[in-house]
Amino acid sequence: MDSQKKYIQLYHSIADRIKKGDFSVGDKLPTEQDFAQEYGFSRQTVRQALSKLEADKIIYKIQGSGSFISDSVLSIKRTMHIAVITTYISTYIFPSILRGIETVATSAGYSILLKATNNSIAKEHSILENISVHDVDGVIVEGTKTALPNPNLSFYRSLADSNVPLVFVNGYYPELLETKRHNILYVVTDDYQGSYDLTSDLIRKGHTSIGGIFKSDDIQGIRRFSGYIDALVNNDIPVDDNHILWFNTETKFGIQQQLSNSCLPKECTAIVCYNDEITLQALESINYQNQTVTALRSFDGTISSQQCSLNFFSLPHPKEALGLLATKKLIHLINGEDEKSAILPWEDN
Amino acid sequence: MDSQKKYIQLYHSIADRIKKGDFSVGDKLPTEQDFAQEYGFSRQTVRQALSKLEADKIIYKIQGSGSFISDSVLSIKRTMHIAVITTYISTYIFPSILRGIETVATSAGYSILLKATNNSIAKEHSILENISVHDVDGVIVEGTKTALPNPNLSFYRSLADSNVPLVFVNGYYPELLETKRHNILYVVTDDYQGSYDLTSDLIRKGHTSIGGIFKSDDIQGIRRFSGYIDALVNNDIPVDDNHILWFNTETKFGIQQQLSNSCLPKECTAIVCYNDEITLQALESINYQNQTVTALRSFDGTISSQQCSLNFFSLPHPKEALGLLATKKLIHLINGEDEKSAILPWEDN
Repeated sequence: MDSQKKYIQLYHSIADRIKKGDFSVGDKLPTEQDFAQEYGFSRQTVRQALSKLEADKIIYKIQGSGSFISDSVLSIKRTMHIAVITTYISTYIFPSILRGIETVATSAGYSILLKATNNSIAKEHSILENISVHDVDGVIVEGTKTALPNPNLSFYRSLADSNVPLVFVNGYYPELLETKRHNILYVVTDDYQGSYDLTSDLIRKGHTSIGGIFKSDDIQGIRRFSGYIDALVNNDIPVDDNHILWFNTETKFGIQQQLSNSCLPKECTAIVCYNDEITLQALESINYQNQTVTALRSFDGTISSQQCSLNFFSLPHPKEALGLLATKKLIHLINGEDEKSAILPWEDN
Repeated sequence: MDSQKKYIQLYHSIADRIKKGDFSVGDKLPTEQDFAQEYGFSRQTVRQALSKLEADKIIYKIQGSGSFISDSVLSIKRTMHIAVITTYISTYIFPSILRGIETVATSAGYSILLKATNNSIAKEHSILENISVHDVDGVIVEGTKTALPNPNLSFYRSLADSNVPLVFVNGYYPELLETKRHNILYVVTDDYQGSYDLTSDLIRKGHTSIGGIFKSDDIQGIRRFSGYIDALVNNDIPVDDNHILWFNTETKFGIQQQLSNSCLPKECTAIVCYNDEITLQALESINYQNQTVTALRSFDGTISSQQCSLNFFSLPHPKEALGLLATKKLIHLINGEDEKSAILPWEDN
């Protein structure tokens, strides 16, 4: 374990003991030396953890006397703040999801600390490093690059261990959910089934050469790919590797170039596309090149079929409803009630 | 389940019963109607399965009398053939792996049926569809696009169910191994540890800005990425999303273009690269652009450090040794002995 993780872990552990009442307001904390022995960490690590506890006003130091429990600790249990960490904030489906979150949070008296990762694990790291258990009662979070191994999982585990419940929206880390924890849940769309249904619909309409464009670094991309290939295979349509394009967070604005290098637009009559953001790009490329593609299916429902010259349908994302449900579940968890993860069907599907 | 999978499943099930001696040479098989009732499949599915059994000379039909067990069935148990399915055959590290396989197979009296998938699931599908339990005693196979959901797993399950053991090399499908089966094994390199060690070596040499180039559709790519980020994180070096490039089977010859669009060559002093095939491309781009990159680490050991103007090292793949070991294990399985999967260390590491 790196030293950074150690001090954060120690920070949460001590904060947790304070919250549980192991130490009371005004009590003197054990010394650096005591903690170092008890936890088997270096004094430097203990010093870092105590500094963060002091910065977060959980303890205060008196020169020459040691560290004491601050009286602000009385309010640790309920900050009435919820952290909301999404990939993006002001664009695409995110304002609607946030509206749902805000509606429930506000009516329950919570205010929201809003952070965006831009789907960058570096950004996610710095956000998580700066969230203290003193700041928030719970976290709603959209996972970052959930299809890949993630270096920040220890932060999430540490929050959950400190009784800060987490509700993942849209995408979560399968590895984090492998060990079932009562206070880590997810609320996501049914990506596999949505994609299976869209692809099956195209097949029913007579398409047999159906291309796919998917995102490789988010779990939604892998699930949508999985629904697409299963629909093909179950209808005895062979999967053609050359008709499948992959992009990721960093290359998502290069999809037109990929399409122009690919045989997909020349050989397929229909496309299942990861989402409307990518569809808008793909449409320009397809319309411009006047290819054989006549039908397109997409996700999130931000483009109407009138806007599109092709036979088009985009599954509407349950945006606001998803935000509402995730926040209800989070507040239940904060209140110590039992809750379960949910997979939402696509709307009007 | 699609009809294609059903008939293949039925084919293997009946062939298996014949091999086990449920029916003897010259015996009359149950009728189409009998099988349809017993298995709950349509008569058309049964007819397809029986046709394949006939084509494979496991049964023969007498007009008006029914189907009978062929005497060629006596040799089903040992065809002395091993199918070897790799992504590529004549290039890169594959001739050496095949040499290892051939050495062991030949000395044990086996001959080899060689097939290449080109890492295409369409090609893999057609190869697996045409392998009959009558043809081979065992299969050595390199998985195709092992980081993605795969539509061909039912073929592998069906072979294993028919007592045709499988040994995966280089990459396997985690989903297929979830349920432990005694006759599906893998022999792979330690991709996580290799990448962790290469990255740690660069850090020891003073590099703090280390880019990565990884393959997104093979499990080796995900594991090597995982070793790379863990080495960074454990040395307190932040992971920078913009310094990581991803490619896949279909876009692997576009890595130079990706590099020229990326800040990686301008901001990193070192790169961990997926393998030597990609390294050769990356080197051209890096040398040409005269960037800040001074060190490069790669996998497979097909490029010597003398060939490279940078500080360079490529972990040697245990090519022939891996082929030897996989084949030994397969033959043990064919002989009904117990065997275990193996993760090979990189050579000279």
